[in-house]
Amino acid sequence: MLGEPHVARASAGITDLDRDFQAFITRTAWGGVWTRPHFDRRTRSILTLAMMAALGHHEEFKLHVRASRNTGCTPADIAELLIQVAAYAGIPAANSAVRLAKETLREMEQ
Amino acid sequence: MLGEPHVARASAGITDLDRDFQAFITRTAWGGVWTRPHFDRRTRSILTLAMMAALGHHEEFKLHVRASRNTGCTPADIAELLIQVAAYAGIPAANSAVRLAKETLREMEQ
Amino acid sequence: MLGEPHVARASAGITDLDRDFQAFITRTAWGGVWTRPHFDRRTRSILTLAMMAALGHHEEFKLHVRASRNTGCTPADIAELLIQVAAYAGIPAANSAVRLAKETLREMEQ
Amino acid sequence: MLGEPHVARASAGITDLDRDFQAFITRTAWGGVWTRPHFDRRTRSILTLAMMAALGHHEEFKLHVRASRNTGCTPADIAELLIQVAAYAGIPAANSAVRLAKETLREMEQ
Amino acid sequence: MLGEPHVARASAGITDLDRDFQAFITRTAWGGVWTRPHFDRRTRSILTLAMMAALGHHEEFKLHVRASRNTGCTPADIAELLIQVAAYAGIPAANSAVRLAKETLREMEQ
Amino acid sequence: MLGEPHVARASAGITDLDRDFQAFITRTAWGGVWTRPHFDRRTRSILTLAMMAALGHHEEFKLHVRASRNTGCTPADIAELLIQVAAYAGIPAANSAVRLAKETLREMEQ
Repeated sequence: MLGEPHVARASAGITDLDRDFQAFITRTAWGGVWTRPHFDRRTRSILTLAMMAALGHHEEFKLHVRASRNTGCTPADIAELLIQVAAYAGIPAANSAVRLAKETLREMEQ
Repeated sequence: MLGEPHVARASAGITDLDRDFQAFITRTAWGGVWTRPHFDRRTRSILTLAMMAALGHHEEFKLHVRASRNTGCTPADIAELLIQVAAYAGIPAANSAVRLAKETLREMEQ
Repeated sequence: MLGEPHVARASAGITDLDRDFQAFITRTAWGGVWTRPHFDRRTRSILTLAMMAALGHHEEFKLHVRASRNTGCTPADIAELLIQVAAYAGIPAANSAVRLAKETLREMEQ
Repeated sequence: MLGEPHVARASAGITDLDRDFQAFITRTAWGGVWTRPHFDRRTRSILTLAMMAALGHHEEFKLHVRASRNTGCTPADIAELLIQVAAYAGIPAANSAVRLAKETLREMEQ
Repeated sequence: MLGEPHVARASAGITDLDRDFQAFITRTAWGGVWTRPHFDRRTRSILTLAMMAALGHHEEFKLHVRASRNTGCTPADIAELLIQVAAYAGIPAANSAVRLAKETLREMEQ
Repeated sequence: MLGEPHVARASAGITDLDRDFQAFITRTAWGGVWTRPHFDRRTRSILTLAMMAALGHHEEFKLHVRASRNTGCTPADIAELLIQVAAYAGIPAANSAVRLAKETLREMEQ
């Protein structure tokens, strides 16, 4: 979902500090959530982006904006979900995410 | 979306303390978000439920479980989104929401 | 600020579990914050209520609604600050606080 | 850790809504965290209680107060960690947790 | 409130991604909150800064430190409210905000 | 605990804006928490790091990673507690903290 270069780069950076951690989150997020059949990947992208914006997890928000090109979640979806974040988690949470989404989408175009 | 009896009951309880507040949130959440065309109501329900569970807003979570019968968001959707909440916002946030969803859906059946 | 009956009741309930804790928070919140001269008590009430609503600390929010009668913070101040909470921390955080404020103010009238 | 009656009661209440969820959290929290060797159970109890108090997850906080009798985490440990929560997550987060800890420990004595 | 150069710069950066979002937040925060008569602008500044520090919204906190020169909220007000944030939302939330306030006020002097 | 050079540097940077604030947090965190006898410093480090990761307080998390060399909290302790954070506060909160811990520990080695 994040693309092979990302995965290769991430794997190369693993040390003793995060070996078990990376195994844990791969098994939990990937094996336990994303491979489940009920929602399609676009819906999971939208859900994850909204939660990450609402909780202020900026790094993970950017990661999932980059992943959106492989999930079918469009820039228009991102724009729309952030309006819902503004109403339900407050304007500042959404405002930061809008700025990050714009930066990340611009980087992806290049 | 919440059904006429809910709206009538809510309107009857308005006092000086929340008159402007209720106007504000109706205009913002209803006029500014839910009437926008991009997402269908089921998607908005799923998004809202995930954010409310992630942020620990229990009253609003129950309100949107009750509203789900008018948005096309099914109990299976709720079950599925809460697994994603567990991975992305932590098990305890999802655990409380599972308990509230079960209680509220049981009350709705009666 | 909370009135003598409240303080007497709270003191009577102290056990080994919270003896040091109660001393810590009295020294920190009361001695370290509320007795400082820069803001008047009404401003401190407004600030505290807004933060408690924004962070979802319901018990403390109710406590400070009850204390408001001794700080000069009026029901109209509470109504107004909760509209600002809705915009900056999201509608659901404010919505729960509006409900609690109405309940608590009604109890105080009786 | 939570005792056999708790587990039996929890299992009996599982429905279609939370079958996969319960399997997910058992695998993640129990299989993925609590069975790991590095920390003893008392340390894991202390860590979990502090995070639950800091994040305002009240139901899970009470669950882990009840579980503390099987982990070696004492009431004095709970009292102490909540002072640290007060400094690092704010007095109101700790204050609610102190109240819940006292209630739950009193119920456990009976 | 943020000054004309800020508004001009912000408007020039709007794209399809945030056109509706910017309209939404202008209408909600500006039209729905800041233009209301009950609180003066200094009080609204103080409230917003305290909530932004408590919730960890760093970008919005800095924006409102910059806006404070047009609202009558002084550096001494900011210093004072952050002590209250430390007690009610925890020392780390206030500590980050103190650092950001000092940086932003120093930039504003230049 | 943070080492004399850190304290000297911090003291030199104090201005009117944070003089009372620094006195407040020294008295509260240092005098009110870290000097208490019940937990050893390693346990307090572990607790603080877990709460800071869970709440997304990145600056304070890094500060306490640096302090860990004086508290007896090892890199293996940090690795382990972050797996518990992932389960109880969500994968993204832990993921950001893992990245910060790796960066900070690498800087400390140099």
